[in-house]
Amino acid sequence: MKSTQEFLYLQIAQSIEQQIVSGTLPVGHKLPSVRVLCQQQQVSPSTVFNAYYRLETMGLIEARPKSGYYVRQSRAVQRMQRYQEILPSPQKLPPLNPSVSDIIDDIEQFNQLSGVTSFAPATPALQMLPGQKLQKSVREVMRKYSDECLNYAPVHGLACLREQILLHGAHWGFRGSPHEVLVTAGCLEAISLCLQALTRPGDLIITETLTYFGIQQLIQNLGLKVAPVAIHPETGLDMKHITTLLKAHKVKACLFTSNFHNPTAYSLPNEQKQWLAQLAASHQIPVIEDDVYGEVYFGKQRPTTIKRYDTEGWVIYCSSFSKMLSPGYRLGYCLPGRFMQQVARQKRIHSIATSSLVQYTLSHFLQKGRFSYHLKKLRQTLYLNMLKYEQCIDAYFPAETYFAPPQGGYVFWIGFAPNTNTYKLYLSAKAHHIGIVPGQLFSLGKQYKNFIRLSFATPFDQKIEESLKKLGKLANNLNIS
Amino acid sequence: MKSTQEFLYLQIAQSIEQQIVSGTLPVGHKLPSVRVLCQQQQVSPSTVFNAYYRLETMGLIEARPKSGYYVRQSRAVQRMQRYQEILPSPQKLPPLNPSVSDIIDDIEQFNQLSGVTSFAPATPALQMLPGQKLQKSVREVMRKYSDECLNYAPVHGLACLREQILLHGAHWGFRGSPHEVLVTAGCLEAISLCLQALTRPGDLIITETLTYFGIQQLIQNLGLKVAPVAIHPETGLDMKHITTLLKAHKVKACLFTSNFHNPTAYSLPNEQKQWLAQLAASHQIPVIEDDVYGEVYFGKQRPTTIKRYDTEGWVIYCSSFSKMLSPGYRLGYCLPGRFMQQVARQKRIHSIATSSLVQYTLSHFLQKGRFSYHLKKLRQTLYLNMLKYEQCIDAYFPAETYFAPPQGGYVFWIGFAPNTNTYKLYLSAKAHHIGIVPGQLFSLGKQYKNFIRLSFATPFDQKIEESLKKLGKLANNLNIS
Repeated sequence: MKSTQEFLYLQIAQSIEQQIVSGTLPVGHKLPSVRVLCQQQQVSPSTVFNAYYRLETMGLIEARPKSGYYVRQSRAVQRMQRYQEILPSPQKLPPLNPSVSDIIDDIEQFNQLSGVTSFAPATPALQMLPGQKLQKSVREVMRKYSDECLNYAPVHGLACLREQILLHGAHWGFRGSPHEVLVTAGCLEAISLCLQALTRPGDLIITETLTYFGIQQLIQNLGLKVAPVAIHPETGLDMKHITTLLKAHKVKACLFTSNFHNPTAYSLPNEQKQWLAQLAASHQIPVIEDDVYGEVYFGKQRPTTIKRYDTEGWVIYCSSFSKMLSPGYRLGYCLPGRFMQQVARQKRIHSIATSSLVQYTLSHFLQKGRFSYHLKKLRQTLYLNMLKYEQCIDAYFPAETYFAPPQGGYVFWIGFAPNTNTYKLYLSAKAHHIGIVPGQLFSLGKQYKNFIRLSFATPFDQKIEESLKKLGKLANNLNIS
Repeated sequence: MKSTQEFLYLQIAQSIEQQIVSGTLPVGHKLPSVRVLCQQQQVSPSTVFNAYYRLETMGLIEARPKSGYYVRQSRAVQRMQRYQEILPSPQKLPPLNPSVSDIIDDIEQFNQLSGVTSFAPATPALQMLPGQKLQKSVREVMRKYSDECLNYAPVHGLACLREQILLHGAHWGFRGSPHEVLVTAGCLEAISLCLQALTRPGDLIITETLTYFGIQQLIQNLGLKVAPVAIHPETGLDMKHITTLLKAHKVKACLFTSNFHNPTAYSLPNEQKQWLAQLAASHQIPVIEDDVYGEVYFGKQRPTTIKRYDTEGWVIYCSSFSKMLSPGYRLGYCLPGRFMQQVARQKRIHSIATSSLVQYTLSHFLQKGRFSYHLKKLRQTLYLNMLKYEQCIDAYFPAETYFAPPQGGYVFWIGFAPNTNTYKLYLSAKAHHIGIVPGQLFSLGKQYKNFIRLSFATPFDQKIEESLKKLGKLANNLNIS
């Protein structure tokens, strides 16, 4: 197994990155040569090369031929500086009022109204879903498995579906057997069952400071304590903090989103994924990986997973078909590694099995190749859509607005000036029939009050443009008043 | 509100019943006249009349015109005496080995084999289910609600289904609004959500000593303490014990099955249902009512529920369509009374919502009157089936076998001589490709090792008769060896 020494380059990269973002290293500044840095840091040349390579891909530095590395004048640097400026400091914030639950209820009710423009749901619009093709599969499996659809499925899920999930996992490098797959009623159920299998009330888990509010409520509900680790929308997880926490505390499990994190849209780089998998094994601590958005990538290749680097079964992979196919079907799955027995036991205890009709349908849909076909189309549609939204935000939102163009998923994570209260923006947008999610809903410490999550999953049209324009105006007004 | 004084007649009836079963009052013995008993017990004549009436309907005494009440020579008395004889005494039992989980896994695997005769599942055989009619509903709702089926349903369930559940509840006297209905993925999920909403680990709840093993595992999993109350397959809950427990302990919730209890097949009489509803309100303790078998009655009328007598929302009613329509669909519901907000919150936290396609289908099926039509047929089929099974048990099982003919549901609760180990019977039956459930699986105290639960839900034919004959033979052998 690799030691964490091999990730030394990440630490070096992070340290330089901080100096660039803070302005200590200004634009145009020449970085030390590889040889000099090797001597300074007592590391090998390849470590320095890797560090510089990472900074280059992040858009922070550039290599000039026969001259060396220089800090770049780039949007990435500006963005990261802007993020640093608007990052909320916890002590200044008044206590949260109303409660997260109240806001969630409110958003749910709003989304059910007709005639509104909601940028709240992190799921694709219905017209992007393969409704007719799914129906075709329903009809075919009803013919073929009429009796089986009526009966209980096995606790672990139907053999045919587990097989298809396995084949699907090959896209990110999963090599296993169908026996390693557990079918659930959605990704959230999978995570809920995992946490219930691995923890008892009062136990400590590690997760991101910013995370999907549904997961926060789950954690709270199970009576778990949380050690939050900062996640930065451009640089990812604070790995050093994780190491410190594991040394100082008895941690029962870690829970991280690997790709297109909700709400920051950030994906962990492969080396962080690998590092987490190795950490899980070396500390013998289960890492629950939430990869519900991994299929919706805008790049050339599906990003890989933490599970991909799992050699001893300490990583539990959770995902779903809901987000890409049909949120209403409620079908997800997990790959619980060495914890299969415990997690399957929770499934039986709480709900016996997942709907057979839905399982046969999804299995058929996958087996016919309809899923891959649909995903390809969905990714294209979403990417083009995202670009149009991006233009509007650039054009209509306050000049100082922070946001990073997502590489996948369904949402923007948008930051305003530090004194902005996006709950107020939420209320005034609602009055204009526009739905957004205020940032505080994603924060374990009730921070990020100047952020919003904005979904780009509704097809762009004039109404959307007008709504974004309106939203920009409301945000401008908020800063003035 | 009625005081428990009004249930004095039940206490008198139970006291006489005990004397009859113990033989203190022999067959043919004349009971005291109503006037004499009134004086002895210091109660009103109507109380004594009610007590005698109850004993008469139980088949324990008979009224002889112009003479008085006499202890009857009846099968009911013999049965109850037999039950008394074979009741296990806890201290004599060796520790359980293997674990309940192991046996459940084993049974699940067995049920999936082909060519076996399983009397294990407490659900109807697939050929008794309305597969074609359900498919018709699936096709119709896919046409009518193609987009809606893809989308998340509201946390509480679809409005159209909640409306239908309400109308259906009118059969046992539910008068409420659709807003009081919460849709779940099966009855077990409903009970799981209720317990999670109402309790924290370490809390004490009251439930029956004998109860469905799924519920036992759920309780254990949630870290709850249990005060078990005896349930007798002929006389029901030990009400006096419940009162004592409520006085002595801080009880967080009660959980009882109202009709065709699993495994004893017993239904609480109306006065016990009413008493429990009143108890819940007067002690301000939620009573969770599991009525998953209530629709499958063999009498003229659907038995009523505890919820029927609930005036202040302290009773939470849980049921399902799975057991009568399609276990594989996973659709249940609850009526959480004053606890709606808490229970709905648990639903959102653990699984967001129940499958929309399944909800639309069931709503359509109910709305077309297909459910009532199907239930009528199912009840007739099951009743006739039960009678045939009964004859076989009478003919082939050991002479001293105890069992009471069920008034509804899907199972017999069968007791053998006290020294019988039905886990051994389970193993030898399995070797002959016959499935049963050993009684210890239903016992909180790992007792009832001389009982089995035997389902009569597979259509009777020659193979069934031969399997029952074989089972009887194996039981006989077990007692000899």
